[in-house]
Amino acid sequence: MPSAPASLLLRTLRPTTLIEAPRLRSLLGIDFVIASETFQYTGSFKFRAAYHLASSVPQELIVTASSGNFGQALAYACKLLGKRCMVVMPATSAAVKVDAVRDFGGEVHLTDVRVKGRAERVAELAAEHPDAYVASAYDDDLVIEGNATLGAELCERQVPMDAVIAPIGGGGLASGLVRGLARCGSAAKVWGAEPLLANDASRSLAEGRLIANETEPLTLADGARTISLGERNWNVLREGLSGIVEVPEERIRQAVAALYRYANLKVEPTGALSVAALFTDPEPFRNLRICCVVSGGNVDPDIYRELI
Amino acid sequence: MPSAPASLLLRTLRPTTLIEAPRLRSLLGIDFVIASETFQYTGSFKFRAAYHLASSVPQELIVTASSGNFGQALAYACKLLGKRCMVVMPATSAAVKVDAVRDFGGEVHLTDVRVKGRAERVAELAAEHPDAYVASAYDDDLVIEGNATLGAELCERQVPMDAVIAPIGGGGLASGLVRGLARCGSAAKVWGAEPLLANDASRSLAEGRLIANETEPLTLADGARTISLGERNWNVLREGLSGIVEVPEERIRQAVAALYRYANLKVEPTGALSVAALFTDPEPFRNLRICCVVSGGNVDPDIYRELI
Repeated sequence: MPSAPASLLLRTLRPTTLIEAPRLRSLLGIDFVIASETFQYTGSFKFRAAYHLASSVPQELIVTASSGNFGQALAYACKLLGKRCMVVMPATSAAVKVDAVRDFGGEVHLTDVRVKGRAERVAELAAEHPDAYVASAYDDDLVIEGNATLGAELCERQVPMDAVIAPIGGGGLASGLVRGLARCGSAAKVWGAEPLLANDASRSLAEGRLIANETEPLTLADGARTISLGERNWNVLREGLSGIVEVPEERIRQAVAALYRYANLKVEPTGALSVAALFTDPEPFRNLRICCVVSGGNVDPDIYRELI
Repeated sequence: MPSAPASLLLRTLRPTTLIEAPRLRSLLGIDFVIASETFQYTGSFKFRAAYHLASSVPQELIVTASSGNFGQALAYACKLLGKRCMVVMPATSAAVKVDAVRDFGGEVHLTDVRVKGRAERVAELAAEHPDAYVASAYDDDLVIEGNATLGAELCERQVPMDAVIAPIGGGGLASGLVRGLARCGSAAKVWGAEPLLANDASRSLAEGRLIANETEPLTLADGARTISLGERNWNVLREGLSGIVEVPEERIRQAVAALYRYANLKVEPTGALSVAALFTDPEPFRNLRICCVVSGGNVDPDIYRELI
């Protein structure tokens, strides 16, 4: 198993940024603190998973499909570790996203998804490179373990909290938090915040079985446009999650704007889900100490301009 | 002299947020880290000065003139300390700024500056309230001392740096950094970053005497629209400053957009001056370890939309 130089390991993860926003706290009437992953390397929590995965597997080449934050995160993790990384992206991806993966050192493989799906292209690349590790952005124990570092960090830094709220897409972050917090003996509950338009996790929790959306949901929160939770994530969340708030699109917009105005925080729509949950349904969180995980900040200026 | 409860003192200042932005570092070819004061209480470094001042003076009422960050900072500091605060603002101030001062607990006194200048209105209020302390946003030893906490913090946290670059308006931040760094024995040089349109400090340094702009400069960096450095600030900076970069408006815009794109950082134009200095004139900073102080993040959405 390869290992990174000590100098790198010491600085591979950036601590989460704890932000208090007194005006927003007053506005919502809830005692909460923000744990922002927007200044994590590559701008989202995904780097925690990507680095843990890339540094744990023996393979020197890692292949993944991602049009978003996981691709950038894995590219940069591999660069730091001296590994190679191939990221399959739709040919229609915004240039700024393709550039980001390339800037961080990843090889971008564009695919016309009308002709060949992303999973199909990943399978092709994996067949061409039998020595490669094929990584999922969420449904992988190494991903869950990497994200568990955030739970461990919140414990270590003794963030006073009765509950933590995290955005839910594939469930990688929330399942990591459940694992990380349980391991350090924290009594904090973990809640999910999911777009109402993409409420498969909420429906799964209600019915006690893994339910998928019929099509990719068209929510503004592009990080939550997953068809369903990953199986490994579901296995953690079915017992570990205390509840899910289903967030209407308008509340996502409101939270992005409020974080801009009251917290000076540039947040992508998916990242704002946790704070949007407080706008949507504050009642379960009254008189508790809440930690809202803001999962990432990478958002195109054209979209952001309209949101603020 | 009144003193704050211990529980408050422990948490009155938020540590500065250290941000690495590898893509921006590559783009500029300079080894630098950002010290962001955008998450300081009230969204700018001004809270350091305001809290130190409000907690040090015996007066229970503080009067100041500010259309910007100092007013909000002083209002919140006074609220925390159980004091009163009057902030004179131009009647034309944006509603969002007036609301912010009020939300933080300050009394806003609007004045039609075509009829009665801000200083005149402050003098009136001071005459009506002879028990009040009249505070300058920069030209006050207590302000300089408050800002010195940032220099002390950079020392304590052992931020590796050969030079620190700070925005310059009235000189409160830069003079505080000079004091704070000198006191802890740091060898780091302090540089200023000033709008070219408002280059009074640069001209003062060149000529060795305090020079004022003839009128309020119309730079995008509204925090640097001061007529001149404060006298107390000049007395520190004339010896303590290693140089000033004069930043064209276009570079300010470029830096705001780059911080949005590559660092997920929402920054007001004045706050971006230090990074804009690297875009303007990178040469003095090559092969050095630089710390860019981003002084604040409060910027109206209408302006920000255009900048990103």
